[in-house]
Amino acid sequence: MINRRQAEGLDDQDPLASLRARFALPAGVIYLDGNSLGALPTTVMATVNDVITRQWGTDLIRSWNTNNWWDAPLRVAEKIGELVGAAPGQVAVGDSTSVNLHKQVWAACAMRPGRSVVLSDAENFPTDLYIIDEVVKQFGARLEVAASHEMVDTIARFGNELAAVSLTHVNYRTGAMYDMAGITRAAHDQGALTVWDLAHSAGAVPVEIDACDVDFAVGCSYKYLNGGPGAPAFLYVAKRLIDEYRQPLPGWHGHARPFEFEQSYAPIAGIGRALTGTPPLISLLALDAALDAFDGVTMAEIRQKSVALSELFIELVETRVAGHGFRLASPRESSQRGSQVSFAHADGYPIMQALIAAGVIGDFRAPLLLRFGFTPLYTSYMHVWDAVDRLATIMETQQWRNPEFIERGAVT
Amino acid sequence: MINRRQAEGLDDQDPLASLRARFALPAGVIYLDGNSLGALPTTVMATVNDVITRQWGTDLIRSWNTNNWWDAPLRVAEKIGELVGAAPGQVAVGDSTSVNLHKQVWAACAMRPGRSVVLSDAENFPTDLYIIDEVVKQFGARLEVAASHEMVDTIARFGNELAAVSLTHVNYRTGAMYDMAGITRAAHDQGALTVWDLAHSAGAVPVEIDACDVDFAVGCSYKYLNGGPGAPAFLYVAKRLIDEYRQPLPGWHGHARPFEFEQSYAPIAGIGRALTGTPPLISLLALDAALDAFDGVTMAEIRQKSVALSELFIELVETRVAGHGFRLASPRESSQRGSQVSFAHADGYPIMQALIAAGVIGDFRAPLLLRFGFTPLYTSYMHVWDAVDRLATIMETQQWRNPEFIERGAVT
Repeated sequence: MINRRQAEGLDDQDPLASLRARFALPAGVIYLDGNSLGALPTTVMATVNDVITRQWGTDLIRSWNTNNWWDAPLRVAEKIGELVGAAPGQVAVGDSTSVNLHKQVWAACAMRPGRSVVLSDAENFPTDLYIIDEVVKQFGARLEVAASHEMVDTIARFGNELAAVSLTHVNYRTGAMYDMAGITRAAHDQGALTVWDLAHSAGAVPVEIDACDVDFAVGCSYKYLNGGPGAPAFLYVAKRLIDEYRQPLPGWHGHARPFEFEQSYAPIAGIGRALTGTPPLISLLALDAALDAFDGVTMAEIRQKSVALSELFIELVETRVAGHGFRLASPRESSQRGSQVSFAHADGYPIMQALIAAGVIGDFRAPLLLRFGFTPLYTSYMHVWDAVDRLATIMETQQWRNPEFIERGAVT
Repeated sequence: MINRRQAEGLDDQDPLASLRARFALPAGVIYLDGNSLGALPTTVMATVNDVITRQWGTDLIRSWNTNNWWDAPLRVAEKIGELVGAAPGQVAVGDSTSVNLHKQVWAACAMRPGRSVVLSDAENFPTDLYIIDEVVKQFGARLEVAASHEMVDTIARFGNELAAVSLTHVNYRTGAMYDMAGITRAAHDQGALTVWDLAHSAGAVPVEIDACDVDFAVGCSYKYLNGGPGAPAFLYVAKRLIDEYRQPLPGWHGHARPFEFEQSYAPIAGIGRALTGTPPLISLLALDAALDAFDGVTMAEIRQKSVALSELFIELVETRVAGHGFRLASPRESSQRGSQVSFAHADGYPIMQALIAAGVIGDFRAPLLLRFGFTPLYTSYMHVWDAVDRLATIMETQQWRNPEFIERGAVT
């Protein structure tokens, strides 16, 4: 088993180690919750200061032109597109992941009239299921769910009843990752479209959305993309589908001639037609600055370190905290995991509270899961080692039985 | 006709004059475009600095609890509710005005099954028409439009075919203001619901939404509410309707038990059920701070000064620039106007560009309209006088014929 000195050695050899300086992390904290809210990139504050004091305060309404506010949703989108393997012109930023999912599932159903089923995962993030369930009703269709291990068979079983398959690439609870290419192929074999939610994969794992022949996708920008709390979400429409793409929230930002203020909607050519209303520009431009933290890094490098950190964490927990009731809830095979590791424990809630009190921030998802996200841009091997060291102390000394740790905890 | 010294005297007696110090306006600029983008309140930058550096950067995910991020959408909503005459518990903040309008028109149609018409104004803001047109299709209904002067008669004519009437209270082009109480009563007489868009009235005119017996409303927070570019919008659901309120974008932020992560949607009691996904918190908390610019001011005081500024502007334009081809495009009667005055002119575009170059910022709406918004919190009588003085110079010297003024201009 690796010791602390050896973990330090891994950091010394880590080509991404210097990237931590791109983030303003508090001293003494080991932050393993970038899967919920990414850390603050150091460039954000200066950018937002400029957006507020100069662009808004001084330039005022003129900023729509002089500071390119109008183009910001598609300009920022290109930075995200690069990180998920999308060629230019297929990604737009705006609204929340939920609203974007509504647009995409609606668009998919509209392109597959008469097909009666949208298939999802029984363990999908709840909002995704709520959103899909509402959309399908509008088309006289229904939502069906399956377990991840039976997804391919279920797709085949529904056959040409299937309008779309809408899945989250990496599961929010377990970190389990779908074979995006394989599922997409299975859906296409039945003539169905795919809508992938990249909330827990964008910036965390190489997505290769074009290469997987994905139809539609959505994603969150405040997790591994570090865009700030509630940063505007993104969506993707494959280039081959954009011309026929229609969405249920048409607005003037997606109009072909927005400044003609025409009373009839006419979508602009290209991905801009996915936009609706005025985006929250302070949050959007914070995201714009935040994405520069990925400059000069490849998703392959990020993935390599992510797997190494995760494997180290699993190994250390299963050796140093063995016998304390932890069960790996994530896939053991790294190729089937995102950048998150979850352990189940009957006393998971107070244990996580004790860990947070000890400066190791992960989070808890009822009823049993302790979640730990590994963000290679700012997480070191020493962090992993120290986190497990503190967990071992908490378990050995039974610190987690402290009554202060029973209160309500963290939020996605 | 008033002279400059007399305008200065009006400022000396203006009880709201000192409020301009609550805004960070650039020197030498007369800003008459608060109907498009409100000016920057001085409190915003410090708040956003805290949100980014301390709340996000240091407290990280814990801010959902320790800095009350989770409650922010409804907490900020109450500040807006006070400004539009809504008793507590009926307003929520989040998403864009367009998305909120989609929710509200959908909710109205769902409550009036079998009725086939949603009525709007032929001159409504285009996005409102696009959004309504999509929603009604889902219910097998249709969008009909009428001119504002025939709205009451048209409501009566559609009778019990009418599911809802969806209007913008103050027109974005002319500033014409509907009789909200009268139209709402006329709609209710037919058993129809009302959805009011308060984009150009919230913070500009006293709305008295409860007293008018309105059913649903939406509104924009970056115009007269000064929330910053693209600040999250708001919506209102009358208390009497909240229990039966359903909306088409259900998300975990509106769930009765969000942290149980249940696979079925169960709306929370109260207005929180109108929420969907995670709001853009930097933009939302900028809005929170911005709204404090209204502290200690009543909407009656704001209205009184708004009318006085607008009347002065009309009088000055019609005397000092008489014979130069301007035609008042707003209602002459102040009771029928919001806080905006529009003049039509065949050369409106280059004239507005010349005005902007001369430090008077209004905007232009094709094909003919020069729009001037009067925000009593930061606009003085002297500003009005000087604005018209510069307009007079531009017309008398024909400065507006300068070729540099032909380029594309401002944005709502």
